[in-house]
Amino acid sequence: MTVAAALGGRLERSRAILDTVDADALLISRPALRRWLAGFVLHRGEETTSGYSGTLLVSRGAQLVLVDGRYHEQAQASCPEWDVRLTHGPIATELRALAAELGISRVAAEAKVLSHADWLAIAVAGLELQPADDPLRDLRMVKGADEIAAISRACALTDACFEHMLTFLHPGLSEHAVAWELQAWFRANGAEDLAFDPLVLVGARAAMPHGHPGDTAIAAGQPLLIDFGCQVDGYRSDMTRTVFFGEPERETRRRYDAVRQAQQLAFEAAAPGIIGSALDGIARNHLAEMGLGEAFTHGLGHGIGLETHEEPILRHWQQPLQAGMVVTLEPGVYFPGEVGIRIEDDILLTDGGATWLTRSPRELVVL
Amino acid sequence: MTVAAALGGRLERSRAILDTVDADALLISRPALRRWLAGFVLHRGEETTSGYSGTLLVSRGAQLVLVDGRYHEQAQASCPEWDVRLTHGPIATELRALAAELGISRVAAEAKVLSHADWLAIAVAGLELQPADDPLRDLRMVKGADEIAAISRACALTDACFEHMLTFLHPGLSEHAVAWELQAWFRANGAEDLAFDPLVLVGARAAMPHGHPGDTAIAAGQPLLIDFGCQVDGYRSDMTRTVFFGEPERETRRRYDAVRQAQQLAFEAAAPGIIGSALDGIARNHLAEMGLGEAFTHGLGHGIGLETHEEPILRHWQQPLQAGMVVTLEPGVYFPGEVGIRIEDDILLTDGGATWLTRSPRELVVL
Repeated sequence: MTVAAALGGRLERSRAILDTVDADALLISRPALRRWLAGFVLHRGEETTSGYSGTLLVSRGAQLVLVDGRYHEQAQASCPEWDVRLTHGPIATELRALAAELGISRVAAEAKVLSHADWLAIAVAGLELQPADDPLRDLRMVKGADEIAAISRACALTDACFEHMLTFLHPGLSEHAVAWELQAWFRANGAEDLAFDPLVLVGARAAMPHGHPGDTAIAAGQPLLIDFGCQVDGYRSDMTRTVFFGEPERETRRRYDAVRQAQQLAFEAAAPGIIGSALDGIARNHLAEMGLGEAFTHGLGHGIGLETHEEPILRHWQQPLQAGMVVTLEPGVYFPGEVGIRIEDDILLTDGGATWLTRSPRELVVL
Repeated sequence: MTVAAALGGRLERSRAILDTVDADALLISRPALRRWLAGFVLHRGEETTSGYSGTLLVSRGAQLVLVDGRYHEQAQASCPEWDVRLTHGPIATELRALAAELGISRVAAEAKVLSHADWLAIAVAGLELQPADDPLRDLRMVKGADEIAAISRACALTDACFEHMLTFLHPGLSEHAVAWELQAWFRANGAEDLAFDPLVLVGARAAMPHGHPGDTAIAAGQPLLIDFGCQVDGYRSDMTRTVFFGEPERETRRRYDAVRQAQQLAFEAAAPGIIGSALDGIARNHLAEMGLGEAFTHGLGHGIGLETHEEPILRHWQQPLQAGMVVTLEPGVYFPGEVGIRIEDDILLTDGGATWLTRSPRELVVL
């Protein structure tokens, strides 16, 4: 199937929202949704430098990509089914002119993405804006076959990278050196990028769930937490393992087993129909029963796709999960000054239940 | 000077805004400003995953960092002068409680950063929000000595990287391979990161000012455009060179010389007191006189610091430049299907005029 054909069905699904929310046009700002719908790609770091280039305007009769001069040729090449418009002024000014041309006045937009200043300016320019975050978000939540294939490739590459790391890791290596090896390995083995800057944390530093690699070296008797993933055709993987250099203490092993069991229980309960927050609760209750409830300081997991973190955020998701969703299961326990343990995998919700997409060993590894 | 002391003066300057805009507190969301003011660092890619963690609330009597459990320990370690608050609910809910505790009601915030949805929710929660984008933006625009030193180190490393690339580049190398070499060189030579994904574009592909590296290989007779930079202590560099494999045609050389001359004229005019848009106009007028006006499809340059692109955006800046500002000068001409030529350097505005921070050869290089 051509890219244009694959994206074509998406345009129809997007246009259907116009009737749901009673609007004349959709204004789409979120980079991942722009890529999903039109094929327009901003690379990493450009979100803050591209102005509103790549913004999509979809009416019943037209689909436009708005770009400034820097992105004009790129958009024409990558969005063949779209009317690429070269813009010069502030977004509100451009939209006022386009509204007159296209005969639109009620525009559905992403209130959680568009800045308050832009929203106000567009409203002042005479367009009637209304928030449509939920229906636009929902478009990308259930993955199609091509998307599942891309995520699966990213996950398989992540497993292969971890297998390599098990032979590479040794005491004396700094967190920085490990992070760089992850990056170099993915680059040499076909990933287009990392999914995010990897977290590589030795010993008590792993008690910072989002701490960053530094000069600390792997040491005998210490755990090492690695949270990493890659990107294939824009789609992400996200996996965490906590490995040990030397036999951990008995209490550490008990905590590890509790985290692993919490993940396993959640996996076994994962199936279309279960409420997201209920799935989170299954892992949370198990850790609480093991006396580790307060040490689990974050949610069980999140959707993953063109973004590393996307809906559904399980802990807050009050709706049934659906087949075709891809989410992480990542229980963790953190004891400041002492240790942090997290195990994270990506799973696909299937008709019958769920399947692991990352498949690296989950049992406690001693190196 | 300790980090805390260095940041201390910044807090006083920030609080002074409370009187200017008649507010009880500042709500600060932009990651670069959070880092500048409190030392709280989000690494690349976390902007989309951190929720509102790292948001600062500064009243006359208190300074708070709001974080969720994932960032709690990290914030306590990196922001010793700040009251780190662990948050659980939506930002509006947390702010309502904090407003009662701190006795604040009028809050100045960044309307260009905060989403419309958050802005509305905070207002509904009872806080009186007002936009303060300009005074908050202005805080970081004139760089201090430590900031200039960090940018200078990033620029020197970028020059050294380019010197290496001149020996590394040869026909047959793909754009991807060149981009990877840039990354590996910076990593091996002390940069903490790239400033952005480098642009490496062969031949006519360079006519896309923001195209991305692909499989196209360097070929004899073709130009190669490289736009790259690195990060040192959070501060960025940003440089572009267009080099040629084989002697360019006469018209190409004429265009190159025009771009170089446009940059040189802008550099010679750069001094405290000149209006930003007037400086842009100097380069633009020269290119227009050379018959290349329509081929210069973007602005002359932008501020650079903790962000790769920050204020002042020269083309739109209607105020006088000031000593201590660091900006890029990056004229370019683009002929779709044919060629793109850009030369970009970073300069520091000094009391007497300006000084180059990137110093790689600007004359036409034939490899």
